[in-house]
Amino acid sequence: MNKKPLILVTNDDGYYAPGIKALVEVAQSIGEVVVVAPDSAQSGQGHAITIKDPLRLSKIDTFGADIIAYKCSGTPVDSVKLAKNIVLKDRTIDLCISGINHGANSSINIIYSGTMSAAMEAALEGINSIGFSLLDYKFDANFEEAKPYIKQLIEYALENGLGSTKLLNVNIPNLPYAEIKGFKVCRQGKGVWVEDFVESEDPRGEKYYWLTGKFINQDQGEDNDIWALENGYISIVPSHHDLTDYPALKDLKQVENIAHV
Amino acid sequence: MNKKPLILVTNDDGYYAPGIKALVEVAQSIGEVVVVAPDSAQSGQGHAITIKDPLRLSKIDTFGADIIAYKCSGTPVDSVKLAKNIVLKDRTIDLCISGINHGANSSINIIYSGTMSAAMEAALEGINSIGFSLLDYKFDANFEEAKPYIKQLIEYALENGLGSTKLLNVNIPNLPYAEIKGFKVCRQGKGVWVEDFVESEDPRGEKYYWLTGKFINQDQGEDNDIWALENGYISIVPSHHDLTDYPALKDLKQVENIAHV
Repeated sequence: MNKKPLILVTNDDGYYAPGIKALVEVAQSIGEVVVVAPDSAQSGQGHAITIKDPLRLSKIDTFGADIIAYKCSGTPVDSVKLAKNIVLKDRTIDLCISGINHGANSSINIIYSGTMSAAMEAALEGINSIGFSLLDYKFDANFEEAKPYIKQLIEYALENGLGSTKLLNVNIPNLPYAEIKGFKVCRQGKGVWVEDFVESEDPRGEKYYWLTGKFINQDQGEDNDIWALENGYISIVPSHHDLTDYPALKDLKQVENIAHV
Repeated sequence: MNKKPLILVTNDDGYYAPGIKALVEVAQSIGEVVVVAPDSAQSGQGHAITIKDPLRLSKIDTFGADIIAYKCSGTPVDSVKLAKNIVLKDRTIDLCISGINHGANSSINIIYSGTMSAAMEAALEGINSIGFSLLDYKFDANFEEAKPYIKQLIEYALENGLGSTKLLNVNIPNLPYAEIKGFKVCRQGKGVWVEDFVESEDPRGEKYYWLTGKFINQDQGEDNDIWALENGYISIVPSHHDLTDYPALKDLKQVENIAHV
């Protein structure tokens, strides 16, 4: 009888990204691993789903003979939906982990992130989920230093659960193992991207715009993920999908008094 | 001097959808309208952005000679970024309205919705924003009954602001004008989609999966958008982009005590 925990691994950088390889290596030392990940890079896909086109699933051996793995033609969220409903239809998934993302998903980046949206989709389905991101966007980023911390957190989650939440947004500073100060549980920091579109012309002389920009920290607190990362901690933000702005409910109540026209 | 408020209109169903035409007609009776909307249907695109490809903006005359309008090759969120940073670079946008979406964006649908993500992007940029959705997904849905209510709400927002919030998720029941009971300010209802993928084979004999499913209401309360809509009200959920699960912060604090390996 197999008593190993069942861990679903996904990401948004695609099944061939070094980040997911590192995450699979960690997960494999802990439990039974099944991978369902996009067949192309899906950074910035947010919570996109594919509704107007069919989806494909293809078996891959990228992670070795021991690991059941599929690439999916859709988005990160599609991958999780197919994993739960097709690949692992009759199984109980103990934990879903997404990443390791090449680059930060702290602060406002969570809403653009395919990595976090995949983890959130699993959380929505009732599965404890963790999205992992390393603060190095390069394809050949070094994930080795982060691995022991990721292992600790996965083991913690499997043994203790995640308290009253279902989803953690975990960002890891790009530092040597010994220089990382440990884990900091914190809120999502306030920040914004200030865009600076590159305007140019294509070879046919037609104008185009290419998105680029700069992240601006708008948070002076020390209890948020931006602060934690700048100070050498791994940030852990318990996250959810209830977007209600609760404090605003009262302010707006008077809208109900608008008379019928 | 032009003292009319400047209203940016966008959507996720594409610039040619009847829903955006209806919204432009309402906005035009109130202020100066500028449209920047996707050039193709983008339902389910969530907060996706385009980072690996250039974006195109093309002037269109779909809304008549008086209205500056562009179609954008990207996602709803891209459209808002281009509107703010390129089309209306030196202008102050008084309100961003998104929709009218063909179909509901209440409850959990907000996280998949391009309509709401476009509005949220504007809110992130500091612009008061409202996403409007009609509970009829059909292309030829009847938006006429909803128009007087939408006008009231836009006028209210321009005159009074949105209190402490920047973003409203507004869903409108598919009922005749006189049967709509008015506005209800409420929280996001708890619900989930239960998937039921259609499995079939394409003409070449290759297997595909097509996403479909059923929305399940998991909320027994009467203070949420699902209840409001089922009872004939227009639901208004003040919304934001802080995904922190605040009550969970305390439960998880012990994670900080995991010893270094």
